[in-house]
Amino acid sequence: MADHHAQTPVGAGLPMLPSLRWDEPPEGPVLVLLDQTRLPVEEAELVCTDVPALVAAIRTLAVRGAPLLGIAGAYGVALAAARGFDVEDAAEQLARARPTAVNLGYGVRRARDAHRAACARGSGPAVAAAAALDEARKLHAEDAEASTRMAGFGLALLDELLPGGGHRILTHCNTGALVSGGEGTAFAVALSAHRAGRLRRLWVDETRPLLQGARLTAYEAARNGMAYTLLTDNAAGSLLAAGEVDAVLIGADRIAADGSVANKVGSYPLAVLAKYHHVPFVVVAPTTTIDLATRDGASIEVEQRPGHEVTELMAPQVVVAGVEAGGGMPVAPLGTQAYNPAFDITPPELVTAIVTERGALSPVTGDGIAELTVRSRRGSD
Amino acid sequence: MADHHAQTPVGAGLPMLPSLRWDEPPEGPVLVLLDQTRLPVEEAELVCTDVPALVAAIRTLAVRGAPLLGIAGAYGVALAAARGFDVEDAAEQLARARPTAVNLGYGVRRARDAHRAACARGSGPAVAAAAALDEARKLHAEDAEASTRMAGFGLALLDELLPGGGHRILTHCNTGALVSGGEGTAFAVALSAHRAGRLRRLWVDETRPLLQGARLTAYEAARNGMAYTLLTDNAAGSLLAAGEVDAVLIGADRIAADGSVANKVGSYPLAVLAKYHHVPFVVVAPTTTIDLATRDGASIEVEQRPGHEVTELMAPQVVVAGVEAGGGMPVAPLGTQAYNPAFDITPPELVTAIVTERGALSPVTGDGIAELTVRSRRGSD
Repeated sequence: MADHHAQTPVGAGLPMLPSLRWDEPPEGPVLVLLDQTRLPVEEAELVCTDVPALVAAIRTLAVRGAPLLGIAGAYGVALAAARGFDVEDAAEQLARARPTAVNLGYGVRRARDAHRAACARGSGPAVAAAAALDEARKLHAEDAEASTRMAGFGLALLDELLPGGGHRILTHCNTGALVSGGEGTAFAVALSAHRAGRLRRLWVDETRPLLQGARLTAYEAARNGMAYTLLTDNAAGSLLAAGEVDAVLIGADRIAADGSVANKVGSYPLAVLAKYHHVPFVVVAPTTTIDLATRDGASIEVEQRPGHEVTELMAPQVVVAGVEAGGGMPVAPLGTQAYNPAFDITPPELVTAIVTERGALSPVTGDGIAELTVRSRRGSD
Repeated sequence: MADHHAQTPVGAGLPMLPSLRWDEPPEGPVLVLLDQTRLPVEEAELVCTDVPALVAAIRTLAVRGAPLLGIAGAYGVALAAARGFDVEDAAEQLARARPTAVNLGYGVRRARDAHRAACARGSGPAVAAAAALDEARKLHAEDAEASTRMAGFGLALLDELLPGGGHRILTHCNTGALVSGGEGTAFAVALSAHRAGRLRRLWVDETRPLLQGARLTAYEAARNGMAYTLLTDNAAGSLLAAGEVDAVLIGADRIAADGSVANKVGSYPLAVLAKYHHVPFVVVAPTTTIDLATRDGASIEVEQRPGHEVTELMAPQVVVAGVEAGGGMPVAPLGTQAYNPAFDITPPELVTAIVTERGALSPVTGDGIAELTVRSRRGSD
């Protein structure tokens, strides 16, 4: 079950609520999510008391973003264990909630394996549940640490690619604290440039159809006092043609063994435009996003989302004269069919560098990806 | 003054209302526009009794599309003359209503020059007004004829570029009967392919921020029984990468002397993507769109539109439980600044061909453009 509570009007100066937190009120443990479908109009928390509620929150994108999905998946397994539900079944439901982000399955497996290992050691349900929760917390902390490291490596790369500072960065979708246990991936790099006084402008693609750029990245940029400008995804070409973009920075939902990057639909057109304009195209993602079991871009399963996301405007819920409007205002004629892939695939030859918590890989090659993964495994074991 | 009347619920099978018509009710002559901001939710006509109302309709995009703007401008001059307003002043106001479409100024000048010539011949106001109206009607008829000819030349070009038929065409913005005295520009080519049984699929870009693709092109495609699919502008890259697009067809708002094409923002990224994927990128526009006085792409003035078109969702007006909602639902945080160019510029080297009512030009060169214009002037004199 999920319930909305703690609705806060969004105002300047308020600290940002955590995108995800574990809580243990007297009624039993819960996973509390900042409902991202309601931002920036209101900050509402969504309290999940079981896995079906969390699966629904993942599917409706109340919680989203590759690294955060991994953390949410791990806590979901811990929640099932703590509440006495079937952990193996919960893990399966969670891993299947969305197909493209590899981190979700990774987080689920880590908590499930910790639970299995405890059971195999003969621990009782409470101890096994605590082991799953510990593993979720460990993943959460690791992700925060990875954010910090990616921000450092990313800024160093920017400074190297673009000597002189004053970076004008174009980004797509949302990759900040709302997708992460820390400050995010691509957004964390821009934030780090901002803090160092070297961000001249953050160009924010609105990111149709669900407007994660307009709703979430603009919100995070405003909260952090960054110089940012919003644009339709369409207008990025004009900016690049005018020489107003020094680098394009995006996150990733899955990176295949050959370095192909699955990310929010609209990333690939940016990569082609960046190449045409000789502007660096940089992917920022933790090594948990790399999936060696997926050989290449063509092997990545791309989630097709419902057509009504395109045929109806999915604005955040707003109340007009006491009536709830938005979230489904038809714009196309009734019966219009829509093509609505959630992601697209950028081949490695269009990616200038992949920045991970282990360092930056450039050029992007299958061998380089394999090497990163080995280093990552050694590091995290 | 403008007034909405004749609101018709949009239903299948109803004939489409004309996008623009001159009427002479007992109260005096009027220009009646199909209000394109209300489509596809409802078909409402907007009745203009004076030039300020028409200027407002042009600015709010109730009437839009380069060729139709020319016709509206000419009728606007005729309206001022018929109603006894200052014709020279009306012509100036109309020509300044929007800066990018060259056709607007062209249509205004034609009606104004006809009026001037009549005055110079010593005609009285009624005869001079009739001369302006005749010229507007002549332009209207010429544009309808140009549509038919472009459709023919365009389909012949498609058949030549893509032997075997079964064309899968991607288009951007709206270029059908709603922008024209006839059946339009790029859309007319697709419609012609459909009627010839050679259109496999029309891919319709939604065209942010004002969603002319979702609202208007989908509406025209549905009315004409075409096989069409809507997509976010972002998803065009995935379609091209998957080999699902045989040609990209767009209209134009202004073509410079060197063959640079100003068209709805998002056209240029499609041109870059089409080049990258070796897919023909074809511009369909009457020769009235060519402006030899504009030397090159850099000399084209690009209209910057208000930021709220991006920061708020401008859905068509809808009534939710008796309350009018939509047309300004905030999606980005308050105070968000937006970059919102209405058009972008595609250089000639990215354009496979320009199809006009005088034939197709390929490759696109300054000499070819000059030659087309000479032929056009000879033809229209």
